[in-house]
Amino acid sequence: MSLLRDRLDGLPEPDHAARDAVAARAAEVLRPAGALAWLDDVAAWLAGWQRTATPSVERPAALVFAGDHGVAAAGVSNYPSDVTAVMLDATRQGRATINAFAHAIGASVTAVDVGVGQPTHDMRHEAALSPERFDEVTRLAFDAVDALDCDLLVLGELGIGNTTAAAAVAAAIAGGEVAVWVGRGSGIDDEGLDRKRAAVQESVRRIAGVIDPLEILREVGGSELVGMAAAAVAARHRSIPVVLDGYICTASMVPLHLAERTALDHCIVGHCSAEPGHRKLLERLDKAPLLDLDMRLGEGSGAMAAVPLVKMACAGVVGVATFGEWFGEST
Amino acid sequence: MSLLRDRLDGLPEPDHAARDAVAARAAEVLRPAGALAWLDDVAAWLAGWQRTATPSVERPAALVFAGDHGVAAAGVSNYPSDVTAVMLDATRQGRATINAFAHAIGASVTAVDVGVGQPTHDMRHEAALSPERFDEVTRLAFDAVDALDCDLLVLGELGIGNTTAAAAVAAAIAGGEVAVWVGRGSGIDDEGLDRKRAAVQESVRRIAGVIDPLEILREVGGSELVGMAAAAVAARHRSIPVVLDGYICTASMVPLHLAERTALDHCIVGHCSAEPGHRKLLERLDKAPLLDLDMRLGEGSGAMAAVPLVKMACAGVVGVATFGEWFGEST
Repeated sequence: MSLLRDRLDGLPEPDHAARDAVAARAAEVLRPAGALAWLDDVAAWLAGWQRTATPSVERPAALVFAGDHGVAAAGVSNYPSDVTAVMLDATRQGRATINAFAHAIGASVTAVDVGVGQPTHDMRHEAALSPERFDEVTRLAFDAVDALDCDLLVLGELGIGNTTAAAAVAAAIAGGEVAVWVGRGSGIDDEGLDRKRAAVQESVRRIAGVIDPLEILREVGGSELVGMAAAAVAARHRSIPVVLDGYICTASMVPLHLAERTALDHCIVGHCSAEPGHRKLLERLDKAPLLDLDMRLGEGSGAMAAVPLVKMACAGVVGVATFGEWFGEST
Repeated sequence: MSLLRDRLDGLPEPDHAARDAVAARAAEVLRPAGALAWLDDVAAWLAGWQRTATPSVERPAALVFAGDHGVAAAGVSNYPSDVTAVMLDATRQGRATINAFAHAIGASVTAVDVGVGQPTHDMRHEAALSPERFDEVTRLAFDAVDALDCDLLVLGELGIGNTTAAAAVAAAIAGGEVAVWVGRGSGIDDEGLDRKRAAVQESVRRIAGVIDPLEILREVGGSELVGMAAAAVAARHRSIPVVLDGYICTASMVPLHLAERTALDHCIVGHCSAEPGHRKLLERLDKAPLLDLDMRLGEGSGAMAAVPLVKMACAGVVGVATFGEWFGEST
């Protein structure tokens, strides 16, 4: 029994009354019904999870989980593992892409070191995380969410080798040809892609008997994947809606979805990554991305890019007069 | 010779050096080359038109052109023409959707009345605008752009019946079956759709001999369509990049593109509308939309929704350390 599994019990439902009130208002504001299509649904969804009929996005925050991967030794990335620490440092000093995006729209960024310089075990040969490490990372993520003052949470990651871990989680859970789940990550060449496929294949074969989704996450995930999954669950308990990022972030959520079918109801998908497995995972989750711009960076950048849409979706209901208000006001 | 045509002479080119500098920097910042894909191109594009190697979006502005349409008498909309004045008033008082979107992201909104309560002639029977009115609207649009202090311009519209005008412009210029260009606009029923197709068909037939694209805009466009086209040209002369909105906005730009092939180079497309003709027009213009969310409101709302992406695209190049800067700083 892990800390994460414990917290999957008793997940709160959304506030249906708040959600329905926003949906009803969206049908009455000064525009043709349905003209904003999906954005009206986003506003109602946010209302339900923020538990208010006046949802808003005033304090968006990103948590960027960072970790290193034993499987990086298999030559699955263009970059050496040292680069994870470099990017963690750059993020903390506000000089990475996620900081620039966040600054542009008034969001905060907190980097959470869950295993930089402390790589997971090589998943080809043994479980990436021990049960103790899994709980330790979970606790770090819970604490990170507890420390936030935010009304919308972006989850992202840093970690050389982590598209390989994501592919292993996806392949182990969703099945099918391993190659379907393995993309070029930060841009590896054909030989690297072959090594990456082989590493994923070997890892997935090793755990062929494991069917528990959270155990799969522990066996072939990574510390930042566990961190994101735990943060999503912690956010649910605090009524904080979540925007998911790309392939790695989404792969980390799939085990939650399998362990508890409603676990991701408070999560929306910011963007669809250029990493080919991402679109397939989103189909499995029956979640559509707000953006589809071929981005493939991570760091939470694709999710952050979608935050203004969520903000505008709320404003488009809360901040617009209804026909009733307008004609009442005007006469 | 119209005022608008005059201003199509001597259109400025972008600042190639600024554009190239941003493209070069995008390849050197702390992320895998190409990881932001199209957003890096957007930043370089903006640099070229803002004529600076440090492009930014600090003062976005929307101009919302409003006008009435003689063809509304053909029963082509769910709403009576009076609604144009209502929405103009709501926009001016900050209570419409475009205001809420703009407020959420710190943009300004200016409504420009180019013909509310002063409908165009019924395009089925005569030219929608006389040459004098065409010039008068052009002048209003030029003045509206001159009065702005902005670094990115959103163009939008209000006008009951204006998807019918847009469809007529598209059909007259792009050809093919009229039905391809006629959608449900604000949500008209099947009978209304038949009336709308017939009105477009009749209008297009009436001007079968007209091949000059700006004359087509005058014959079957509308005052707000002319206003948007003129504003786009005025913005070009002031080095203000433009974000285009949906079907009506795009239809108003097609004549410019035909009159002068480079006329829309400073324009990016904010979103693809649910109005089916929009995607087809964008293909003709070889322009891809940043967003694709099934919105169909107008008012500049789809373009405004894309403004934060343009802002983040710039921040993602200008605000992120290069590898050189970072390792220079750190050692």
